[in-house]
Amino acid sequence: MSGYFDHIDPIQYEGPESDNPLAFKYYDAKKKIMGKSIEDHLRVAVCYWHNFCWDGFDIFGAGTFDRPWHGPLNDQLAAEAKLDAAFDFFDRLGQPFFCFHDTDVMAAANTPKEHVENFAAIVDKIESKMANSKTNLLWGTANMFSHPRYMAGASTNPNPDVVEFCALQVKHCLEATHRLGGAGYVLWGGREGYDTILNTNVGQEMEQLGRFVSMVVEHKHKIGFKGDIWIEPKPHEPTKHQYDRDVATVYGFLKTYGLEKEVGVNIEPNHATLAGHNFEHEVEMANAFGIFGSIDFNRGDPQNGWDTDQFPNDLRENTMALYYILKGGGFTNGGANFDAKVRRQSNTAEDLFFAHIGGMDLLARALMNAADLIESEKLSEFVSRRYSGWKTGLAAKMLSGQTDLDSMASAALEKNVSPEPISGRQEYLENIVTQYTK
Amino acid sequence: MSGYFDHIDPIQYEGPESDNPLAFKYYDAKKKIMGKSIEDHLRVAVCYWHNFCWDGFDIFGAGTFDRPWHGPLNDQLAAEAKLDAAFDFFDRLGQPFFCFHDTDVMAAANTPKEHVENFAAIVDKIESKMANSKTNLLWGTANMFSHPRYMAGASTNPNPDVVEFCALQVKHCLEATHRLGGAGYVLWGGREGYDTILNTNVGQEMEQLGRFVSMVVEHKHKIGFKGDIWIEPKPHEPTKHQYDRDVATVYGFLKTYGLEKEVGVNIEPNHATLAGHNFEHEVEMANAFGIFGSIDFNRGDPQNGWDTDQFPNDLRENTMALYYILKGGGFTNGGANFDAKVRRQSNTAEDLFFAHIGGMDLLARALMNAADLIESEKLSEFVSRRYSGWKTGLAAKMLSGQTDLDSMASAALEKNVSPEPISGRQEYLENIVTQYTK
Amino acid sequence: MSGYFDHIDPIQYEGPESDNPLAFKYYDAKKKIMGKSIEDHLRVAVCYWHNFCWDGFDIFGAGTFDRPWHGPLNDQLAAEAKLDAAFDFFDRLGQPFFCFHDTDVMAAANTPKEHVENFAAIVDKIESKMANSKTNLLWGTANMFSHPRYMAGASTNPNPDVVEFCALQVKHCLEATHRLGGAGYVLWGGREGYDTILNTNVGQEMEQLGRFVSMVVEHKHKIGFKGDIWIEPKPHEPTKHQYDRDVATVYGFLKTYGLEKEVGVNIEPNHATLAGHNFEHEVEMANAFGIFGSIDFNRGDPQNGWDTDQFPNDLRENTMALYYILKGGGFTNGGANFDAKVRRQSNTAEDLFFAHIGGMDLLARALMNAADLIESEKLSEFVSRRYSGWKTGLAAKMLSGQTDLDSMASAALEKNVSPEPISGRQEYLENIVTQYTK
Amino acid sequence: MSGYFDHIDPIQYEGPESDNPLAFKYYDAKKKIMGKSIEDHLRVAVCYWHNFCWDGFDIFGAGTFDRPWHGPLNDQLAAEAKLDAAFDFFDRLGQPFFCFHDTDVMAAANTPKEHVENFAAIVDKIESKMANSKTNLLWGTANMFSHPRYMAGASTNPNPDVVEFCALQVKHCLEATHRLGGAGYVLWGGREGYDTILNTNVGQEMEQLGRFVSMVVEHKHKIGFKGDIWIEPKPHEPTKHQYDRDVATVYGFLKTYGLEKEVGVNIEPNHATLAGHNFEHEVEMANAFGIFGSIDFNRGDPQNGWDTDQFPNDLRENTMALYYILKGGGFTNGGANFDAKVRRQSNTAEDLFFAHIGGMDLLARALMNAADLIESEKLSEFVSRRYSGWKTGLAAKMLSGQTDLDSMASAALEKNVSPEPISGRQEYLENIVTQYTK
Repeated sequence: MSGYFDHIDPIQYEGPESDNPLAFKYYDAKKKIMGKSIEDHLRVAVCYWHNFCWDGFDIFGAGTFDRPWHGPLNDQLAAEAKLDAAFDFFDRLGQPFFCFHDTDVMAAANTPKEHVENFAAIVDKIESKMANSKTNLLWGTANMFSHPRYMAGASTNPNPDVVEFCALQVKHCLEATHRLGGAGYVLWGGREGYDTILNTNVGQEMEQLGRFVSMVVEHKHKIGFKGDIWIEPKPHEPTKHQYDRDVATVYGFLKTYGLEKEVGVNIEPNHATLAGHNFEHEVEMANAFGIFGSIDFNRGDPQNGWDTDQFPNDLRENTMALYYILKGGGFTNGGANFDAKVRRQSNTAEDLFFAHIGGMDLLARALMNAADLIESEKLSEFVSRRYSGWKTGLAAKMLSGQTDLDSMASAALEKNVSPEPISGRQEYLENIVTQYTK
Repeated sequence: MSGYFDHIDPIQYEGPESDNPLAFKYYDAKKKIMGKSIEDHLRVAVCYWHNFCWDGFDIFGAGTFDRPWHGPLNDQLAAEAKLDAAFDFFDRLGQPFFCFHDTDVMAAANTPKEHVENFAAIVDKIESKMANSKTNLLWGTANMFSHPRYMAGASTNPNPDVVEFCALQVKHCLEATHRLGGAGYVLWGGREGYDTILNTNVGQEMEQLGRFVSMVVEHKHKIGFKGDIWIEPKPHEPTKHQYDRDVATVYGFLKTYGLEKEVGVNIEPNHATLAGHNFEHEVEMANAFGIFGSIDFNRGDPQNGWDTDQFPNDLRENTMALYYILKGGGFTNGGANFDAKVRRQSNTAEDLFFAHIGGMDLLARALMNAADLIESEKLSEFVSRRYSGWKTGLAAKMLSGQTDLDSMASAALEKNVSPEPISGRQEYLENIVTQYTK
Repeated sequence: MSGYFDHIDPIQYEGPESDNPLAFKYYDAKKKIMGKSIEDHLRVAVCYWHNFCWDGFDIFGAGTFDRPWHGPLNDQLAAEAKLDAAFDFFDRLGQPFFCFHDTDVMAAANTPKEHVENFAAIVDKIESKMANSKTNLLWGTANMFSHPRYMAGASTNPNPDVVEFCALQVKHCLEATHRLGGAGYVLWGGREGYDTILNTNVGQEMEQLGRFVSMVVEHKHKIGFKGDIWIEPKPHEPTKHQYDRDVATVYGFLKTYGLEKEVGVNIEPNHATLAGHNFEHEVEMANAFGIFGSIDFNRGDPQNGWDTDQFPNDLRENTMALYYILKGGGFTNGGANFDAKVRRQSNTAEDLFFAHIGGMDLLARALMNAADLIESEKLSEFVSRRYSGWKTGLAAKMLSGQTDLDSMASAALEKNVSPEPISGRQEYLENIVTQYTK
Repeated sequence: MSGYFDHIDPIQYEGPESDNPLAFKYYDAKKKIMGKSIEDHLRVAVCYWHNFCWDGFDIFGAGTFDRPWHGPLNDQLAAEAKLDAAFDFFDRLGQPFFCFHDTDVMAAANTPKEHVENFAAIVDKIESKMANSKTNLLWGTANMFSHPRYMAGASTNPNPDVVEFCALQVKHCLEATHRLGGAGYVLWGGREGYDTILNTNVGQEMEQLGRFVSMVVEHKHKIGFKGDIWIEPKPHEPTKHQYDRDVATVYGFLKTYGLEKEVGVNIEPNHATLAGHNFEHEVEMANAFGIFGSIDFNRGDPQNGWDTDQFPNDLRENTMALYYILKGGGFTNGGANFDAKVRRQSNTAEDLFFAHIGGMDLLARALMNAADLIESEKLSEFVSRRYSGWKTGLAAKMLSGQTDLDSMASAALEKNVSPEPISGRQEYLENIVTQYTK
């Protein structure tokens, strides 16, 4: 089963001038940035699904990848062959973290009983693999969107039997994540929305979702899992509308169920743009709400309206995102998972490496840029000065709830205020970012 | 100053077969639908700004309307001429409600003192006008986005002096709305967002907004205003990002500041679509959160990405919206304000009437369709049956918080559940809506 | 193999008041509209791919349909079982036209030789089926996008071997379409574009496409096929960019290769909206260029940015489209193919009928509305009057090329023209359409 | 009137490490890149309208800029004060090219006679100014969209009198451009489309446009103007639909009227993205059609759906655009006009400089990156190799029209071709671009 990656030597750091497409040019893992190594800052993870499960199909065409582990073995052996390939890839890439869905790693199951057995069987194998590797688990998640039983929703399904199946999957996946030392657990509700509002009780469904996430949090504490739980926002696709639309919507949801201290967000840039936000907006909103967790790095195509899940290549965008991530304190349990897939035409083993090398180099460069920006204080000083009027006087009283509309209106009248519009200096600030993007 | 509308006779109801473009074909004001007259259901309002203030300019061209009240009078006289024209229009249209911004009705002011004086002067005039008319005030609002002082935000401005000016405007406008018998007061934060995140402290700004709205609510109680306060969601434009993006975001904001029982939403379909939602989605989300308030009826252009504010003409869309409005109990203080403007090429007095007649006829038809749909129970029965499993057993326990993940997972395993996917019947339900859209 | 549709009786016309979801309410096939029966106006077709090939999978989940003909038979028998099911469906729906891709109907093939044999085998079977049915073929097409060989393009592939395979497929499919009495032949270039411009020579690829379509036209004449050839515009998906973006782009392409008299367009509303146009725009552009051909009726979702291929349900949109279709002379060889799929949750035999009944009823209603609009001449008279100044004088000379810039400038100066802006009456015209949409 | 820019010293090149926001960091005008100086490559131009005419208004708010030349002078003096300010700005920025609309520079006019007189008066003044400056004219254009007479179209207006006014404006503006030594003349059809198809005869309007552009070309030859004529594509805004949607649409239009050798395109990135294309796509399409002319450099906001006209700041995007521009031979008559405006909050003299400095630095950096990419041949070699199969054999015959469908189908069958899908190497190529973007 092995051999697919045999002709690829372990990837080395060679520096920015290297012409070797199979070498890192910026990702110098141990290099210190603001006192911490690049690898500890970024906590790069490889995702299981796009790299080892997907065969290159799209909605208009069949699979184009000829991965040997997708062969005609019985399922359990195929699952193990896939695991071998995955860890072989991790090793050659420098042993990053990984992320998985339960159904990515296991032999397919149709009944609860089979699910529990098949999942347990592969988790044992994963544990063994990890014992001989420096690769760690960033986070796990249960796939509750691909099986036909979930066509009308997972925890928001009109049929309670389906929700019991969800409970089973999440319980076992959360426990496996705990056992494998995962730093986090993700909930992505691909079917937690509606295709048509005509057949949907949105109030009921949001209530189901609220209760379900609450049960997951309770279970986390029950089993003593110390990692984080993150919801991954997305506005739509495959559904017309998904309840966890964006960071602000997720925050409102958490607040409604009293979960805002318990659950954070796993932000994906392509989901951000589909929701009408840029990447850094979602990061900074999560910072503002105190729910920043982890990132699924990728990019969408600004001219295409679906989730393209491409590897990131925009240095400015990722510099900005990492600037706000660092400003918020950086990753703790979270990390930089590449929820990205090579293009359907990129059908060789090399392409998987090109993609990850490009992504890791990009993040390393963006991290160095972001750190320089932080240390220069050019942006932060400007912003801080701009709002400095709120520290004292009536303004400060307003923020602390010690004044009222009448008093403020009176103040305006007494001073007969005629505030001069002060330049926002957008182009000046953008030039700074451009200069630091290198 | 009068005379602009003199050649237009008061608009009459003539029935669906009428060929008269200046007659109502469906809007039969006193006709009873589900026990209430059409006019009491819809509470139609004409907006001041698009009809009496706007001169037809757009971003690429100068005004095309030759309204006589836009003449070279001094400001106060021009404001009074505009008021005369507005009430003349209301009379000929059948004395609907109206809505206004403070700056729409008053002579322009630059200082707090002028603002208070000029606004007070015109409010007196409005009060007199209303005394001789059946036209009532649906809602008032303060324009805190057009004056240059607001270029960097209103209550979210970095400069506290600007926020004092806001307090002054809102205090006086809320009090005038109260005095004029308005049913509601709207907050639309056209500049409450950012043009670039680079110069913005989003946490600080959301805090300012939260405190400001709280002060408005406190002031409402202080003066004894019994109407409602509504926030109008919009995702962007003129800003890159506006904090009150959509209904779910506003709900999260209200929840954060404990205002979810005090403040509702004024939904605009064109804002809904710019935010990536359809109209009925926003209505039903507001129902689900218990914050439905009022509607700014209009439509956008699905191929154009800005706020076109066109008069509604989509019968299916408005049938759906009114279906969910009726399902939620219909309007109480809220109503159907046309936040819509005739096209820039529609530069005559007649065009103002064509537009409003078309809009009112459309809403009347949509209301009748929606009532028929409600009474048929075809949609509601289907939805109710679809979720019936949640009324009993473990499902009901989950919703009431009396079970946990383990128990539900065990149930799945014990029953070895294998839920059959049940058809969502989308096309069947859509056919019903099509049949009722007539 | 039969039996899947046995419990569905042939669909009958029962009139607008019928409550039977399995009856036509407006589609009264023989009813005369403007002197022609509804069925002869619309030439409704059922598509093979969405109804009989697709298993309900989407990019995030597995198939949800349990069609018996998707069983574990060998390919040829499966193809024949599918054919039986298709004609059974056609019969119960009232024997409409159908449309197919070569690979929809045949047993899968990997080599040219297999392709020719397997396709020939099923075409014989189709011919027999048609001999016993009133169902006719609207159009055929070759699927040159699903097989991995086409991942980098069909006739625009960098590899000439792939283009030879295209030639083989199109030759045989065009000849089969001719033999089966098809009225048209469609070219949809799902992969005729690029994923990244970085690896693409767009000039070279457009040249390949131009030559390829020319060869297809030459072959049509060689074999004596009297039907039409149509290109189906689409802007992107699955590619980032597709060369046949929209009607205007296709016209430029045809003009470049001298094909504008030989090839028309097959317009799809969901492709129109993805390209930034509404449906009627594309129809009217095709009329203006003289290349209108056929329609793939469906609809997209205005809030979702991918090709949702839903059944049409918007009466106004389809009234407008049919208005412009009738205005252009109506269908000749073209017709109303439903390139639409039931939703993934609509997983029963009934759902296939609900969808088609709804679509056919909608088109029949829209056709009647459009005919009324045409006969009223309310729109056409307005437009005709608006441009009447171009029939005489200097204006007419300009159109016929008999004047120049100097003369026109002189005329302006001599007359010292000061043209009054004349109302475009948009709301008035929209109200007319609303009134006729019933 | 002078003095607004007095406190800004002439901008100097200080190199990449400079901290001076009022210095060039990359735009070293005389530096040679591929044998030509940066200034000769880029031919940077400042636009008159956004910088000297616009007062900072937007659709929701009044002007925020306090430009002294917008004072209460009579029109001709104001026009001259504006001219002084413009040339003062040009001088301090290093005497770039400029671009203008007739109405930008002149005193406003309502009648043809006034138009001719006022325009002639200011053209004299411009000529004098230029005599004492190294600033040259890149291109001129007539504003046929702002005056109310153009609300229903310029050359596509239903009223021929309006088209006579267009002829007058274009004649005089083209002649002035010629006299002032302009390198090109631009036609942007801001109103050359429709607001609603209901009142529009699109065939008639496109015919008017075709004849009008033909007359302009004839006039160019008549007066001996040796510069280029360029159409500027845009899909919509202010109209719902504009006929000159994108490069491919313009090419089809030119082809229809036999103008494809006479007229090129002036591409604007923000118009490209509104049309669903990225910037480099439009450049490369223009190269492929042989109609590349000039660029209106700016950027849009990917989350906002209107024309934001921001200064460019995306190094990767502009590297790619300049790569394709250089690959096509670079600018001849065309150049790099900044059709970009400072943000409404950027209300000081400094902001105008920050914006242009940022834009010029960005283009200089992008130019150096693009030149490196060209010289490395890494992209071009890959593309060339990918299509090498088309140089010989049956493939070459197909391109030269010497074979037919039958022969190609036979070849496929004889060889029994089974083409292997070859990796498109998208991520590999993207990594190269990333590495060269610095």
